[in-house]
Amino acid sequence: MAKKEAKKLDGLFHDTLKDIYFAEKKILSALPKMAKAAHDRSLKAAFEKHHAETETHVSRLEQVFGAIDAKPQGKTCAILGIVEEGEEIAKEYKGSPALDAGLLAAAQAVEHYEISRYGTLRTWAEELGLSDAVKLLEATLGEEKATDEARSHIAETGVNQEAEAA
Amino acid sequence: MAKKEAKKLDGLFHDTLKDIYFAEKKILSALPKMAKAAHDRSLKAAFEKHHAETETHVSRLEQVFGAIDAKPQGKTCAILGIVEEGEEIAKEYKGSPALDAGLLAAAQAVEHYEISRYGTLRTWAEELGLSDAVKLLEATLGEEKATDEARSHIAETGVNQEAEAA
Repeated sequence: MAKKEAKKLDGLFHDTLKDIYFAEKKILSALPKMAKAAHDRSLKAAFEKHHAETETHVSRLEQVFGAIDAKPQGKTCAILGIVEEGEEIAKEYKGSPALDAGLLAAAQAVEHYEISRYGTLRTWAEELGLSDAVKLLEATLGEEKATDEARSHIAETGVNQEAEAA
Repeated sequence: MAKKEAKKLDGLFHDTLKDIYFAEKKILSALPKMAKAAHDRSLKAAFEKHHAETETHVSRLEQVFGAIDAKPQGKTCAILGIVEEGEEIAKEYKGSPALDAGLLAAAQAVEHYEISRYGTLRTWAEELGLSDAVKLLEATLGEEKATDEARSHIAETGVNQEAEAA
């Protein structure tokens, strides 16, 4: 059916790895700005903690590139639009009691993009028999899910009440 | 701190509602193309089923607009980039055994964007005491999560093996 040599799952895995590598690096530069913009101390701390974790995620991805004998390389992806949405919220709601709730929502959208990508890559790594990559991707996926849950907890207990009460 | 009248959580809720309304309408037009592109019958059927569900999601969102006395209205959002990523995959992997795996991954990224937005809106609707909106958003959130799980199951059991074996 394919007229040219068809790209297979290993090509798709490599392409998607470049995508999440670009995303993690983008997030690494966005998080300090979000921590600076946030009013709530627990939210500020959560962004700072995730910044440190993200450094580990970047380094794990570099190991996954190594596992498929490829050079770490990023490729522009949809994270750009998601991060920009967060930057717009930060501008538009500056000085508003709803700022933190907006920042948190933007961060959750980023997190879900990552969860989706790591879930996909982990499944593909299993299919491709890349056991070292599976372990690395699994470790990050677990941390991204934990971050999502911790942020949902902040959203439900702290930040939003403040936005509403103010 | 705010020099102009600060937008509060109700404004943020309304803005984010416009965002997901735009996203659902975009997804509504993307799904038939994804169903057409998919090779695997169960994947085709999954996209078609989700198209019907998405029509219900749009109608529920219109009821949420009604609950805050607002006219249903969309606002361009980051879903555009995510959907475009799926369209690129469909083009780039046309005729490849990895096409379905790529389409599925793109659909999962869309799904996670929605899960993040509905989770946020549900939490905010609770804060704002919009009990009818909570029920509507909760119903859709449950269906989006079920879709995500069903697709993960397809990814793990069917489509990817095919991509790898071909």
